[in-house]
Amino acid sequence: MTHLKNDTLLRALLRQPTEYTPVWMMRQAGRYLPEYNETRKRAGSFLALCKNPDLATEVTLQPLARFPLDAAILFSDILTIPDAMGLGLYFVEGEGPRFERPLREEWEIRDLSVPDPWEHLGYVMEAVSRIRKALDGEVPLIGFAGSPWTLAIYMIEGRGGTDFLLTKKMAYERPDLLHHVLDINARAITAYLNAQIEAGAQAVMIFDSWGGVLSHAAYQEFSLRYMEQIVSGLYREREGRRVPSIVFTKGGGLWLESQAAIGADALGLDWTIDLAAARTRVGDKVALQGNMDPAVLLSTPEAIEREVAAILASYGKGSGHVFNLGHGITQFTPPENAACMIEAVHNFSRQYHQ
Amino acid sequence: MTHLKNDTLLRALLRQPTEYTPVWMMRQAGRYLPEYNETRKRAGSFLALCKNPDLATEVTLQPLARFPLDAAILFSDILTIPDAMGLGLYFVEGEGPRFERPLREEWEIRDLSVPDPWEHLGYVMEAVSRIRKALDGEVPLIGFAGSPWTLAIYMIEGRGGTDFLLTKKMAYERPDLLHHVLDINARAITAYLNAQIEAGAQAVMIFDSWGGVLSHAAYQEFSLRYMEQIVSGLYREREGRRVPSIVFTKGGGLWLESQAAIGADALGLDWTIDLAAARTRVGDKVALQGNMDPAVLLSTPEAIEREVAAILASYGKGSGHVFNLGHGITQFTPPENAACMIEAVHNFSRQYHQ
Repeated sequence: MTHLKNDTLLRALLRQPTEYTPVWMMRQAGRYLPEYNETRKRAGSFLALCKNPDLATEVTLQPLARFPLDAAILFSDILTIPDAMGLGLYFVEGEGPRFERPLREEWEIRDLSVPDPWEHLGYVMEAVSRIRKALDGEVPLIGFAGSPWTLAIYMIEGRGGTDFLLTKKMAYERPDLLHHVLDINARAITAYLNAQIEAGAQAVMIFDSWGGVLSHAAYQEFSLRYMEQIVSGLYREREGRRVPSIVFTKGGGLWLESQAAIGADALGLDWTIDLAAARTRVGDKVALQGNMDPAVLLSTPEAIEREVAAILASYGKGSGHVFNLGHGITQFTPPENAACMIEAVHNFSRQYHQ
Repeated sequence: MTHLKNDTLLRALLRQPTEYTPVWMMRQAGRYLPEYNETRKRAGSFLALCKNPDLATEVTLQPLARFPLDAAILFSDILTIPDAMGLGLYFVEGEGPRFERPLREEWEIRDLSVPDPWEHLGYVMEAVSRIRKALDGEVPLIGFAGSPWTLAIYMIEGRGGTDFLLTKKMAYERPDLLHHVLDINARAITAYLNAQIEAGAQAVMIFDSWGGVLSHAAYQEFSLRYMEQIVSGLYREREGRRVPSIVFTKGGGLWLESQAAIGADALGLDWTIDLAAARTRVGDKVALQGNMDPAVLLSTPEAIEREVAAILASYGKGSGHVFNLGHGITQFTPPENAACMIEAVHNFSRQYHQ
């Protein structure tokens, strides 16, 4: 077990005192970095890159070589689990992920089973363990998975989209079938995240990218309760340290109180919610992670510094805030603008931690 | 001036007592109706249908011939205004609206001017006046427009989408330019809605379809304040009756308190917010319109009735609720499911109005 030199992120996620506000960026290893595009080209495709532990390690470390980030996050994709279930993940250039065999018939749903993460997703565990070794204790490594509801959408629709009518139709017409899919997903994700923790992940995050398309009641029934099932099944400690969990429902700002009650250590927030209001609503139950609009990074250093300052001021004094974007960094971001944001977070935040 | 036989909608929007909860559906004249598809085919295209007052009247009335709806809504499109500004609206089948000449240069933005609605959008006023006549006082006619922010997105991006990076980049880098566009739009929309009221619209609605993609602070600055400008410039009375105004920001549930303060009579709500919580938050400042997920209409009569009952129960006793979907009805809706919803609203709601 290596000593962790910078554990600011882990302390902030547990609302313990820190010297400054830690920062990382969703999709920080990504297409806005020329070196990432080089490696991806070498891999042949996005999916080949995900499935190659050497190259996944390489791209995971790239943003850390450029920027003083306070965390690394495993380079992977939320759809590895349904791929391991046999649905046949592939990517259409410029259009995102698809499945060759989406769930269309009841028997296909009844046939689903929970993949063993070590057997069927060994390439992910291998990447986690290599990244941990390569990091050599510099910063913590975050593991992640998609939420049961978000995976179910891709498994049922066969792709992303905006309306998700097949999945919602099932929610209202055959809730029993959808609950079956969600329960399988929740068990698969729990095993998968625990395997990542065993392989070396020091914090884990659940991405509920599409929870925000549900009604108030349907969110509780079809998304949140399965994330609660996962959180309650996660390893809480590893290597003598607490492994913090983060739950992020994009577009879920209306439901913070119920999210804060499921046992996760922190909530991810998109930019639609004011941090001060969010902090008031969750009290001291959870830390908060977010929430700058990634579009700000397309503008000027002055605008970026202004937005960083406003977000830090909105959270205010004390620990429990991890700075991040409210969604993945866009491919059009000039890397120097990301650097500007990270520097501003580190510099401006010290005053709030005295 | 014709006597209005069913003024339930207008009373509900002003929080006056009604016998039941009135109901209409966003996009109620649309592709889920075979008779609409027939008329559209005759027109040649969606845009030709919008620009032909006779056919626009015909499709506006079609859902009323089928269902006991409590309102008609003008058949038109939110992008008629930028089209009248000379940006060249066209539609790509299956992909939605586009502009031939989106705003790319500063001089193009400086050259924008407010179109005279009677001169440049006469086909809309002609449709409003024919529909009013054809309705013969059965139910009120709702006029509408897009919000300044929502129009600006299409004018700047040239199309819809999900990220709106050009518009947001302008918001952070050149807010002065974006404010210029928004001010022109707000003045154009005010004149346009007032012309609709003069032509016969008995209530008006502003669709802020994309306000929900903004940050908390940016929403106030770039969307809400321009809707306030419009609302304060609208004719308040016509034909001896108050003309109620409805403001609807899709994905705007976090900002209800500020929306309720701009002077509109009612707020539209999507399905992400619980009506009881919304009612508590806005108090007696505004009526509420919404908010069933249109996906429910793809399921069974039992599920539809259950959802209608839950929404009515959530709002609870008293006036001030207009039942609607939280977004436009989808083209895949069986018309008999819409009928089921409308009947359920009328039957189940009487108990809340005693």
